[in-house]
Amino acid sequence: MRATIKDIAAETGFSVTTISLVLNGKGYKISDETKNQILAKARELNYRPNQLAVSLVKRQSKTIGFIVPDISNVYFANMARAIDEACRENGWSVILCNTNDNYDRDREYIDLLADKGADGIVFIMAKDNTREMAAEEIDYLESIHIPYVVVDRIPELRNCPAVGTDHEIGGYLAARHLLSLGHRRIACVVGPHATQMDSEARYHGYCRAMEEAGIPVDERLVCAGEYTQEGGAAAVEKLISQDFTAIFACNDASAYGVCRKLKEYRKKVPEDVSVVGYDDVFYARMLEVPLTTIRQQVREMGREAVRLLLKQIREHKRPESKVIFAPELVVRESTARIQPS
Amino acid sequence: MRATIKDIAAETGFSVTTISLVLNGKGYKISDETKNQILAKARELNYRPNQLAVSLVKRQSKTIGFIVPDISNVYFANMARAIDEACRENGWSVILCNTNDNYDRDREYIDLLADKGADGIVFIMAKDNTREMAAEEIDYLESIHIPYVVVDRIPELRNCPAVGTDHEIGGYLAARHLLSLGHRRIACVVGPHATQMDSEARYHGYCRAMEEAGIPVDERLVCAGEYTQEGGAAAVEKLISQDFTAIFACNDASAYGVCRKLKEYRKKVPEDVSVVGYDDVFYARMLEVPLTTIRQQVREMGREAVRLLLKQIREHKRPESKVIFAPELVVRESTARIQPS
Repeated sequence: MRATIKDIAAETGFSVTTISLVLNGKGYKISDETKNQILAKARELNYRPNQLAVSLVKRQSKTIGFIVPDISNVYFANMARAIDEACRENGWSVILCNTNDNYDRDREYIDLLADKGADGIVFIMAKDNTREMAAEEIDYLESIHIPYVVVDRIPELRNCPAVGTDHEIGGYLAARHLLSLGHRRIACVVGPHATQMDSEARYHGYCRAMEEAGIPVDERLVCAGEYTQEGGAAAVEKLISQDFTAIFACNDASAYGVCRKLKEYRKKVPEDVSVVGYDDVFYARMLEVPLTTIRQQVREMGREAVRLLLKQIREHKRPESKVIFAPELVVRESTARIQPS
Repeated sequence: MRATIKDIAAETGFSVTTISLVLNGKGYKISDETKNQILAKARELNYRPNQLAVSLVKRQSKTIGFIVPDISNVYFANMARAIDEACRENGWSVILCNTNDNYDRDREYIDLLADKGADGIVFIMAKDNTREMAAEEIDYLESIHIPYVVVDRIPELRNCPAVGTDHEIGGYLAARHLLSLGHRRIACVVGPHATQMDSEARYHGYCRAMEEAGIPVDERLVCAGEYTQEGGAAAVEKLISQDFTAIFACNDASAYGVCRKLKEYRKKVPEDVSVVGYDDVFYARMLEVPLTTIRQQVREMGREAVRLLLKQIREHKRPESKVIFAPELVVRESTARIQPS
């Protein structure tokens, strides 16, 4: 156990009050000899003031919570690093709350953070939230009056402080890139639509680019990929009987599954089929054919979330607006100009 | 701001003392009507007891710190997940402290955690620690009487509560596997020796397996790989003029660099050269040739660290022993029986 004022009292024989006055620099009426004895003992015991007590007086713990679906996922781990970094620069600390993408844990952690006296929450919602449940979570955060910023998965049914990526633009950039290389038969391997608004937005961006190019979206070229490697592979099995020269997979994990399965079918990337992923996870460049993909500004998003949150905490008012970052296209080797057939 | 007892007092007109008695279930002498009014208002305002105050009385914050070199590194992110999970099961929370592998931040975070009243620390030291600095950090932790467990990078010069991997066995398993496939000319791409004891241990394990097989270690086949992709590639450039049929790279990042560079030299893995990595990071199986590697028991290590730490906190005494996990060999496609030449 760390040393307290009581320990210094026990070892020096002075009262807790006397010691407290000296350590807080208010011992005006106390003799120098006594002061020196107390300060020497405090140093010897490595006494440090108890910040819990300070927090209680100031009603500020200088700690925020980070509720995150899965810290072992590279995307979230990178965001955690940015959030930790931004907090540290401002003298704040981060409590890590890993939910395993489980809605009940979102709630549990919100209560826990409120109980611990966290000053605010950076909140990435669990994937198993429906739109209605997401709205309820926002209502709950509002009802307990704890400052918060929602990141990445932004609920549609409530207006709230949020930082995210414009995934419609991301999907648009991916499809535009393939169109610019001469592709017309472009398949889309979509993510889990039911619950994830970001997956739907990527698909809408793809549709907009196709329509702008005067190409009607062919439903036979749209397959579920579930954002997983297995889902990407399964999508190729469904697509293989169709006529296509390019695939936009709505995240990198499914793009990886797409590439592996194309290889099984002896289709070469990019000679036979161009592939675009989404996220630019760090292994995207390490794949057999380094992946062309859409990069989110993860670090900037994490830092912006902290900025908005600390502003709320310091100014005691809600920020007006959402901050939405535009993603960017990263061209590597998995896309090429369409081959004359 | 969340509601406090003062807010309930302001809205109901009762005294703080009365309200405190009711909320703590001690309002024996208080009328039911008053009680009901207070409880109704507490519910309406979503009042929750302030855990900071509870912590101060109990001298336990139910929070531990996790000092980690780089949360965006998959290995550490997986460990963070296991630590968070184990804490959560026990009702504890985790403060995340990312040091960027910087020694000064280790110190800063130890002080910060002590000041915040963290009950203990799971501590992965920064890479830029020398052996002497590592020993000093342990002395410092001991001097401020905060329970701690060192994980992964275990200082040699001090005896302390620790959880780690037996990297000597890991190196031994890697080399034994290659020897069992008939390889005799086995190169070793080592990590940063000067500061990292784990890198040296992997190398020692390799040496032991070679000696057991009656093969003297050939210094020309031992190259620095710095645990990085670039380092692995550079090592192959030095090795290429030598005669070898297998490479043990002391981590997966350098193994990936080794494979890329071998490909540039038109050497096929595993037909021309077998490659073994170390760590089993999640992309090991995603590489062009899925990597044979040594897997550390990351999840088990994280959970054990929490178990040891909470035991210390609850029992107010230091655990006696280190817990060292044995790693295991994971055979994939990057290793094969030596080809008759």
